[in-house]
Amino acid sequence: MSDVLELACELIRRRSVTPDDAGCLPLIGERLARTGFRITHLRYGEVDNLWATHGSAGRTLVFLGHTDVVPSGPEAAWRSPPFEPTLRDGRLYGRGAADMKGSVAAMVVALERFVAEHPGHPGRIGLLLTSDEEGPTNLDGVRRVVEHFGAIGERIDWCVVGEPSARERLGDLIRVGRRGSLSGTLAVRGVQGHVAYPEKALNPIHAFAPALAELAAERWDEGNADFPPTSFQVSNLNAGTGANNVIPGELTALINFRYCTASRAEDLRARTEAILQRHGLRYALDWNLSGEPFLTPPGGALREAVVAVCRELCGIDPEQSTGGGTSDGRFIAPMGAEVVEVGPVNATIHKVDECVTLAELEQLPQLYRAICERLLAGA
Amino acid sequence: MSDVLELACELIRRRSVTPDDAGCLPLIGERLARTGFRITHLRYGEVDNLWATHGSAGRTLVFLGHTDVVPSGPEAAWRSPPFEPTLRDGRLYGRGAADMKGSVAAMVVALERFVAEHPGHPGRIGLLLTSDEEGPTNLDGVRRVVEHFGAIGERIDWCVVGEPSARERLGDLIRVGRRGSLSGTLAVRGVQGHVAYPEKALNPIHAFAPALAELAAERWDEGNADFPPTSFQVSNLNAGTGANNVIPGELTALINFRYCTASRAEDLRARTEAILQRHGLRYALDWNLSGEPFLTPPGGALREAVVAVCRELCGIDPEQSTGGGTSDGRFIAPMGAEVVEVGPVNATIHKVDECVTLAELEQLPQLYRAICERLLAGA
Ligand SMILES: [Zn+2]
Ligand SMILES: [Zn+2]
Repeated sequence: MSDVLELACELIRRRSVTPDDAGCLPLIGERLARTGFRITHLRYGEVDNLWATHGSAGRTLVFLGHTDVVPSGPEAAWRSPPFEPTLRDGRLYGRGAADMKGSVAAMVVALERFVAEHPGHPGRIGLLLTSDEEGPTNLDGVRRVVEHFGAIGERIDWCVVGEPSARERLGDLIRVGRRGSLSGTLAVRGVQGHVAYPEKALNPIHAFAPALAELAAERWDEGNADFPPTSFQVSNLNAGTGANNVIPGELTALINFRYCTASRAEDLRARTEAILQRHGLRYALDWNLSGEPFLTPPGGALREAVVAVCRELCGIDPEQSTGGGTSDGRFIAPMGAEVVEVGPVNATIHKVDECVTLAELEQLPQLYRAICERLLAGA
Repeated sequence: MSDVLELACELIRRRSVTPDDAGCLPLIGERLARTGFRITHLRYGEVDNLWATHGSAGRTLVFLGHTDVVPSGPEAAWRSPPFEPTLRDGRLYGRGAADMKGSVAAMVVALERFVAEHPGHPGRIGLLLTSDEEGPTNLDGVRRVVEHFGAIGERIDWCVVGEPSARERLGDLIRVGRRGSLSGTLAVRGVQGHVAYPEKALNPIHAFAPALAELAAERWDEGNADFPPTSFQVSNLNAGTGANNVIPGELTALINFRYCTASRAEDLRARTEAILQRHGLRYALDWNLSGEPFLTPPGGALREAVVAVCRELCGIDPEQSTGGGTSDGRFIAPMGAEVVEVGPVNATIHKVDECVTLAELEQLPQLYRAICERLLAGA
């Protein structure tokens, strides 16, 4: 069994469903400490975070990942138990195999080998891991760590996020930016009444309908060279008492923008409220900006290095995408860092029978190490 | 204590929350049996119904009412306990005082007195009471009784419904018709997905929005001389998993028409579905017609009699309305009967501190008896 496979299995065996780290981070911390890394455990609330660095002055390259996983769902639905790493048909099966204990194991192995080979490398190399990436709020994970970094003046220049980015094989797609996410909780007020006396009531469903149609039809921007257009979704809509003879007094909706750098969050907020106001609605709307969009432009050292490594090791010219959901990269980018996401195929993540191919798993440490070599091994 | 007040108190004391009759109907049945009425108890499912008649050949005048009441809500919110009839400030307080144990007591007393005075009156006089008027479905109340009447060839010519119809004082408003009620349960189908990948999902909220706006803005008819325009309400609207990052796969809505004789139910159904189809929606829509509209036109003997009695006894020219909710009159009208609703002030019904004034309560038996005199006492 290879080093990376053994560590991936050890991590999968730990039931680290958010936010319970189940010992993953101490295991990795002890291991990297033996290789000469400085280890800091940052615990916020119920969440463990690990910050490991090697080297001192110069530019800092950080690998970012998470050890927490989403729940397995009914274990009986799995062909092999989700927390029992299983080899089958050239794949490693288990919850977190692809998202992202395989990548985490690969990062650890890559760092160990790089430091063994280049004990006096220029700059700093680091690993930042959280056990709160898959949870609903992510309040005590990388978000809090970055607040702490701000307070102590910690810097990051380049950040490789190991999230599963590939479509069909390792290296076919990397993420060089992410859209922002802006959410709103909307309450539209009406006047409750009996359906037989509509003149004494004000139905918030009817009042909201034309505004909703306008919001759903709105084209918020055209996107730009780097991003697809901003997308708006009403994810939840609820009104009514359950009874069919009562006109409800209030309607609530959850709305979400996935927005690109062609729009600013404050403009999206203002345009939404302008539509609500033009329809004369009485409403309350609480906004929550959970991540600004970020883009690592072409020409930066990290983005060029990752593209070159994909070509060299995987023989693919990777698609350089800004699509998909958010990742913890959104917290690192505002530090002024270049952020690129590259990891294994994401076809099975969050599903039953999650897996990673052994071929990808063995190639990943080479890929991550090659990035280190290009950026920190010197001329 | 007067006869009507005593009986009203006896009925209020019984906690006859739908469908538990709590002995109200046997009490009334025994009492009318002593006066010479033929008594039939019709029990369907959990529901008691009482059918009492006096006389034989000729036209049939029936008083219609219910002994069930809506729940009291928190008893502590009442100034006096809801099931303890209490006299205060010239009013009788208690759940059902106005809706409609006061009217039921008045009907019983009116019938007793009329029969005592006119033991050989022409035609037939009757009382039909149910303990399933306030429940959610009314399946086993007057609806079932009328089915049974159809099966045995029972006829009703005139029906006085004792529901609380008055606005400010007894006689100021009578109902000479009711709108129909047509309900629908709508499911709009989409494709569930992640908000970050809207191109892989189909948001049923967005798909439904323009159809909803059109339905809410539609003018279904202009009403007519007898009825206000048909009204459409979406009473309930629900979509979403609760999570703000999931595009829901389905939206459900409950819709309701209160429709007048200017529209037919089948046309409202067809027009609704045409709007849904024009917007290209994938949907399922289950319709439920819970009552057709009915109208007792001017010139009929019952309507003229009730108007004349209001003028004579209450000194008011009553408003002759077709507004408001449905009543069990909707089941009697299709038998070919004239139906008129006249009862006490409805300001406190279904609320805490429900009450009827003693003045109304004492006048009601006179009013009901005067209707009997006009229609059945002969020349
Ligand atoms: Zn992940
Ligand atoms: Zn009633």
